[in-house]
Amino acid sequence: MSIIAVGSVAFDSIATPSGRVENVVGGSATFFALAASHFTDVRVVAIVGDDFTPEHESVLTKRGVDTRGIEHAKGKTFRWGGRYLDNLNEAKTDFTELNVFEKFQAQIPEEYKDSEFLFLGNIHPHLQAAVRLELPDVKLTGGDTMNFWIQGANQELIETLRLVNILLINDTEVKMLAKDSSLPRAARKVITMGPQALVVKHGEYGATIFFREGAFGIGSHPFRAPALPLEEVKDPTGAGDSFAGGFMGYIASQPELNREVIKRALFYGGVMGSFAVERFGTERLQSLTRGEIDARFQLFRELTHLE
Amino acid sequence: MSIIAVGSVAFDSIATPSGRVENVVGGSATFFALAASHFTDVRVVAIVGDDFTPEHESVLTKRGVDTRGIEHAKGKTFRWGGRYLDNLNEAKTDFTELNVFEKFQAQIPEEYKDSEFLFLGNIHPHLQAAVRLELPDVKLTGGDTMNFWIQGANQELIETLRLVNILLINDTEVKMLAKDSSLPRAARKVITMGPQALVVKHGEYGATIFFREGAFGIGSHPFRAPALPLEEVKDPTGAGDSFAGGFMGYIASQPELNREVIKRALFYGGVMGSFAVERFGTERLQSLTRGEIDARFQLFRELTHLE
Repeated sequence: MSIIAVGSVAFDSIATPSGRVENVVGGSATFFALAASHFTDVRVVAIVGDDFTPEHESVLTKRGVDTRGIEHAKGKTFRWGGRYLDNLNEAKTDFTELNVFEKFQAQIPEEYKDSEFLFLGNIHPHLQAAVRLELPDVKLTGGDTMNFWIQGANQELIETLRLVNILLINDTEVKMLAKDSSLPRAARKVITMGPQALVVKHGEYGATIFFREGAFGIGSHPFRAPALPLEEVKDPTGAGDSFAGGFMGYIASQPELNREVIKRALFYGGVMGSFAVERFGTERLQSLTRGEIDARFQLFRELTHLE
Repeated sequence: MSIIAVGSVAFDSIATPSGRVENVVGGSATFFALAASHFTDVRVVAIVGDDFTPEHESVLTKRGVDTRGIEHAKGKTFRWGGRYLDNLNEAKTDFTELNVFEKFQAQIPEEYKDSEFLFLGNIHPHLQAAVRLELPDVKLTGGDTMNFWIQGANQELIETLRLVNILLINDTEVKMLAKDSSLPRAARKVITMGPQALVVKHGEYGATIFFREGAFGIGSHPFRAPALPLEEVKDPTGAGDSFAGGFMGYIASQPELNREVIKRALFYGGVMGSFAVERFGTERLQSLTRGEIDARFQLFRELTHLE
């Protein structure tokens, strides 16, 4: 089945203890789409400038991603520059040039409107809501957000949350959104804001999903998928979006939607996040094979499996 | 089988967002012993002052812990005061009064010398080594340490590591000890320093164990046990020592020592750590029943279990 990814396509300039790259294709929609493309058909809605060439676009099209929803506007593509010091979990932003991204309207092409799944990347909540309302027939909507919107567009975000089935954010964002420093209590509060399930991403430690009572199955027990950096972490950029792409992509590839599917999807999220960080930019997500993905799924499964 | 716990017994004064307590019985040996006492016989080696009354000691003796190895010296007991702000993972120390702990010699009573297991709590590495050498017949030695010794007594620590079978420290300490910011690489380096296995404690995210090739079984695949704060975290003090107590205590309770036992032990470590933080000081470790422990073990097992 098809999934639409709405978000940013950008040029990233990144420095980490392992090296540096300049102006490589990145952005939330890019990482999400590449990760999800290993499981299902992916359609991207984004905006780029006239400096974005067919060669840049081939990063997506070579993986079969549908790029008809990428608007080419006059001006420069969104650029982000950042560095990771010894603490690879935290990026220090050097510069953010929104450029054409400032006029992003997230237009959904007619040909995309039969999509069953939707992922609302980290953009302004009112834009997320507008996209969701334009696609009344999607079966499942996943969403992301960040501290910037939690603090700066709180009311719009609260309204958008009612339109999202599964919210995927990190520990800090959950606590900030719920205004509560206890994770289990904060998670319960976020669930009451609208989503049927909340995925809390723990970076290198994996992720936990909390369910509303009865959502996608019986009970409300949380579930955790581990992750483990298996090689040197070269570049953490895009790990969270790659996680979301693995998670949503796997769900979209399955004939049914139930707890077991969601549990496996959480493992696939961790798998795709762990691959993404092994090389700079999107390099590893492009070279990956399904065999490598399933081998790591098995490894993560055994990582916590008791006889 | 019996396990000796060597470490501190202290009076703690703790403030957290949930409240505060003053001069409650704490210390690494106390938390370790109480956690391990739910699985096996525990014998403590520590030092206290003449302000440490039989009532204080009953915190341990009520759980059947053997306290004959606690030396009562003239002077005051070790006191620690600290607070946890919003980030419950990090303690801010208000004061540390070593008092009688400064003259701690870690004398092993004759009656303890038939113990099969040993846990070297976080004390000076040369004292850890001396204790280990006095007990040549122990089957397995677990050890803890901290940044203070890694930086301040590095050479002594490196020598002590050759005498330890399983080292239990946290992420930051592993990276500091190996002088390497990549966890898997740092773990491999620590394994070459002596221990057959390294347990890396991730706080609320559980723990990962790395094995030397062939140690306790086949291969060198790491294993992860999750953890999850199930209720409000009231007081994080002693979580790491309680983890170690659950881990070592379960191992000591088993007739055989193999990978499956160690994997289950890692889960029991997470279980005991998660209980310890639910109340102030050692309160929860004292009130716990084996039924509650096994129920949470089952819950943590299901937390990551795929069909």
